Amino acid sequence: MLELDRPTFQKLWAREQWDQMPVNRSLLSPLMFLERSIHVYGDKDAVVDGERRYSYEELGARAYRLASALRAAGIGKGDRVALLAYNSDEALEAHFGVPQIGAVLVAINIRLSADEIGYIVAHCGAKAVIAHPDFAQLIAPGLPASNIERVIWTSEPKQTQNGAVELARPSTTYDSFIATGSPEPFALGIDDEEDPISINYTSGTTGRPKGVMYTHRGAYLNALGEVYHAGMTGDSVYLWTLPMFHCNGWCYTWGVTAAGARHVALPRVEPKAIFDLIEREGVTHLCGAPTVLVMIANEAPSKDYRFPRPLRIVTAGAPPPPTVIARIEAMGAILTHAYGLTETYGPHTVSEWQIKWNGKDAEERARLKARQGVGYIHAPELRVVDEHMSDVPADGATMGEVVMRGNNVMKGYFNDPTATDKAFRGGWFHSGDLGVMHPDGYIELRDRAKDIIISGGENISTIEVERAVYAHPAVLEAAVVGVPDEKWGEVPKAFVTLKPGASATAEDIIAFCREKIAHFKAPKAVEFGPLPKTSTGKVQKFKLREKEWAGKEKRIN
Amino acid sequence: MLELDRPTFQKLWAREQWDQMPVNRSLLSPLMFLERSIHVYGDKDAVVDGERRYSYEELGARAYRLASALRAAGIGKGDRVALLAYNSDEALEAHFGVPQIGAVLVAINIRLSADEIGYIVAHCGAKAVIAHPDFAQLIAPGLPASNIERVIWTSEPKQTQNGAVELARPSTTYDSFIATGSPEPFALGIDDEEDPISINYTSGTTGRPKGVMYTHRGAYLNALGEVYHAGMTGDSVYLWTLPMFHCNGWCYTWGVTAAGARHVALPRVEPKAIFDLIEREGVTHLCGAPTVLVMIANEAPSKDYRFPRPLRIVTAGAPPPPTVIARIEAMGAILTHAYGLTETYGPHTVSEWQIKWNGKDAEERARLKARQGVGYIHAPELRVVDEHMSDVPADGATMGEVVMRGNNVMKGYFNDPTATDKAFRGGWFHSGDLGVMHPDGYIELRDRAKDIIISGGENISTIEVERAVYAHPAVLEAAVVGVPDEKWGEVPKAFVTLKPGASATAEDIIAFCREKIAHFKAPKAVEFGPLPKTSTGKVQKFKLREKEWAGKEKRIN
Repeated sequence: MLELDRPTFQKLWAREQWDQMPVNRSLLSPLMFLERSIHVYGDKDAVVDGERRYSYEELGARAYRLASALRAAGIGKGDRVALLAYNSDEALEAHFGVPQIGAVLVAINIRLSADEIGYIVAHCGAKAVIAHPDFAQLIAPGLPASNIERVIWTSEPKQTQNGAVELARPSTTYDSFIATGSPEPFALGIDDEEDPISINYTSGTTGRPKGVMYTHRGAYLNALGEVYHAGMTGDSVYLWTLPMFHCNGWCYTWGVTAAGARHVALPRVEPKAIFDLIEREGVTHLCGAPTVLVMIANEAPSKDYRFPRPLRIVTAGAPPPPTVIARIEAMGAILTHAYGLTETYGPHTVSEWQIKWNGKDAEERARLKARQGVGYIHAPELRVVDEHMSDVPADGATMGEVVMRGNNVMKGYFNDPTATDKAFRGGWFHSGDLGVMHPDGYIELRDRAKDIIISGGENISTIEVERAVYAHPAVLEAAVVGVPDEKWGEVPKAFVTLKPGASATAEDIIAFCREKIAHFKAPKAVEFGPLPKTSTGKVQKFKLREKEWAGKEKRIN
Repeated sequence: MLELDRPTFQKLWAREQWDQMPVNRSLLSPLMFLERSIHVYGDKDAVVDGERRYSYEELGARAYRLASALRAAGIGKGDRVALLAYNSDEALEAHFGVPQIGAVLVAINIRLSADEIGYIVAHCGAKAVIAHPDFAQLIAPGLPASNIERVIWTSEPKQTQNGAVELARPSTTYDSFIATGSPEPFALGIDDEEDPISINYTSGTTGRPKGVMYTHRGAYLNALGEVYHAGMTGDSVYLWTLPMFHCNGWCYTWGVTAAGARHVALPRVEPKAIFDLIEREGVTHLCGAPTVLVMIANEAPSKDYRFPRPLRIVTAGAPPPPTVIARIEAMGAILTHAYGLTETYGPHTVSEWQIKWNGKDAEERARLKARQGVGYIHAPELRVVDEHMSDVPADGATMGEVVMRGNNVMKGYFNDPTATDKAFRGGWFHSGDLGVMHPDGYIELRDRAKDIIISGGENISTIEVERAVYAHPAVLEAAVVGVPDEKWGEVPKAFVTLKPGASATAEDIIAFCREKIAHFKAPKAVEFGPLPKTSTGKVQKFKLREKEWAGKEKRIN
């Protein structure tokens, strides 16, 4: 029998790489998850992207083709490969093909400007970029100053996409590029599980973005944690409402693959496509910021729509308002609230539900679920500390900074030891988020340090004010920031989007809030209109603040 | 605020041990799972043992008391502590308290003889033993030749238990011993996650038992794997039908704790106690050999009994016969079939169910479920190889040896490099089990190398013959071994236990089998009576063989 006739799973385990390792040790790498799913779910649909469907066997073959083509193109261990793409099978394959040869994936936010993207590709020193031709105008200006040697288009560029673009580097298409590679599995290109697997640039609101380094070990453990807390199995179907460039999709790129579940790509977060795919592909899981949930709840095909099967949703980025929880759960969603940062591979904590809370009333349950919670199963280390690194009292009232440590914390900022040392001071990672520790060990964020409003010497949590505004029946979305005030230094102002057809005046909302929270915390002004958002649906408060503070100096950072 | 007033979870994360470690790295140790569950589920019942109920906060405090008392008694990193106990809260606590100080737990099978136990405590060099007084007669003879300095009785010995026993070492009771320790959390006593956490002696059928070393890293990963494949969550309730001394309860001692689920101790596998606890404690999960399932199915409180809620059962030790699968599933069990060895931390493979099989008929589904399957999520590396370490064809027919590697393989045999090298030859762990690789990547055992029958030059799988015998409606349990035969060298003989009230002759059963399988494979003789079993309910075929082969030389090992 020829070796070539063997099924892929036999080739995987017969590779020579194993001969160089102890019998009782494998590197913790998410690439092992792909290998297992090729073995267990070889003929099952691994990824659905529009009309294309690839089995795990095919996903593996395409990832190995990409890996060997990159290697043949001179890319090796530690080299960076940038990615600028919609959620797609190519983006997913890059999460396996690039690290397979020990190279490092730099998945870039497609909503950034050409200037920001130019900075990132130069800073990370990427030698190649995989990009959708829609982003030709974004990538082209940065090429001359970069180390990029080639551009790999995920599809043939159309005249309208980059016809006017002069590329300073040779380009090819993804499919023709990987056709030059071999579909055969080969050895993993790292020899230390703490080698980097990806760099994710933070969307820093001040200064230049920083490159957060993930390791194979960290990505492996976080992916397992996501599988556990989302309750995924081989029968799950995951809809990609979260961008893959966002913390590598909170490591679901690797986690969904670990479970042998199905990836359903979604290039743009559009209600019609979401509901179509939920119905047609049997979606069981998705992730998104509360604003994505608001959109899903608001754009349901009918008023009393229910998902055709239980839909598990993990939400993060902001605490889900009680009304949003109630509406999405009424549609048949099982909502889990998580919290984390790019520096913690995405979620680090989860509002883990306790069976003893089942009997509580809806308001109390929503309050409990809106807390950021406790560490993931693989990432329990979590504190709220004062400036001397002492724990604040676990009284649910005293504010401190949320800090984490352990296998879920980044390796460091790429080429920025100063920023790394600062973030790691005192032996813990400093989130920059302010919160309280409840007596039961659950944390609750009060604010980003820079979001807190100091009004007449009193701290005001914008989250608390937002919760009051959200409770108004006409409010669809709200964001509160501190704005300059001659008397108080700063005061809260609410930016509000009303529900379609609903109406309310600024005075209505202010009066409503003053009944719910202390008068000094209620907004002093309300402005109506759409809210500025990031690609993940997170409200960009800094844009609101910048507008209000233009020409003035803010007393706090 | 005094530090002493802080809740335990704050003390855990404020320990100095973290200062000595990188911010982004924690040791993979199952002790981290206890720490998380103290934090998340501090006030929830962690363990139920008869009338006693301890919360996770109390379980932690008792484990830390044990740890600090052991340290005060001169036990330190790398020292071994033996355990000879029923499934109990003390046995569970030992799985945390002993490794907390870096010591190594040696949980010994309580069904062994005094001679075997004497060998094990001498071989492992344990400095202390925690034992139930029921086993005083078993432990006493080995003390003089051991390094044991003290005996810790799990309860006050009664006159009838060890009144006649002269102990060569001082003794104390567990509760008074741990009362001398501190309930405060303290630093983990290892600095390498590949340090040993436990040694589990194999119940070798030939020669002396070998001490299988588990590491903190291996136990951590396997525990997570068990949580995933058993579908455990914080709401789960686990009944201890599997002995904790068996591969540390397949690492469920640590896995149940990882999920923050509830341990329900069961000192003896008795049907009445099992059904009482299933009803009263809301049991959702248990593990056991197929013989345990047979007992549960046979001794149900009523003929049409159904479990009060879905009960997930993981079975291993032998493939579950189709009739057993059908009966236990009709009672509302969700059955998962796993396979492994002491050397692989318990289960390494699982008959992972594929949604595409749901439409198949009952017989085909039972056949698929009875296969040993594919590697666990954290342990995918699995092959079936010939004597040259080449994969046998994946044709479901060609037999080879099942081999594994990776994080789920033992560190080695304690103080036995020769046996370790032999087991690890060719870079893989050799299971000694013979099986086939199906085209879909699932393995199916045909036999232990030593269980295979070679009759007239033809290989006969005793499992295949047993499956035929099991299909007879009067048969409750069956085991088949090769017995000496002048003409054929050896021939199959069946040992059978009939169902209560059922009757069948040897001729009936032989004729029945000859209709199902090749004539040369059908048993040539049938003997009726109870089957000899291990403490885990596994049939001890070697005892049947020994009886038949007494005075004769078997041609194969």
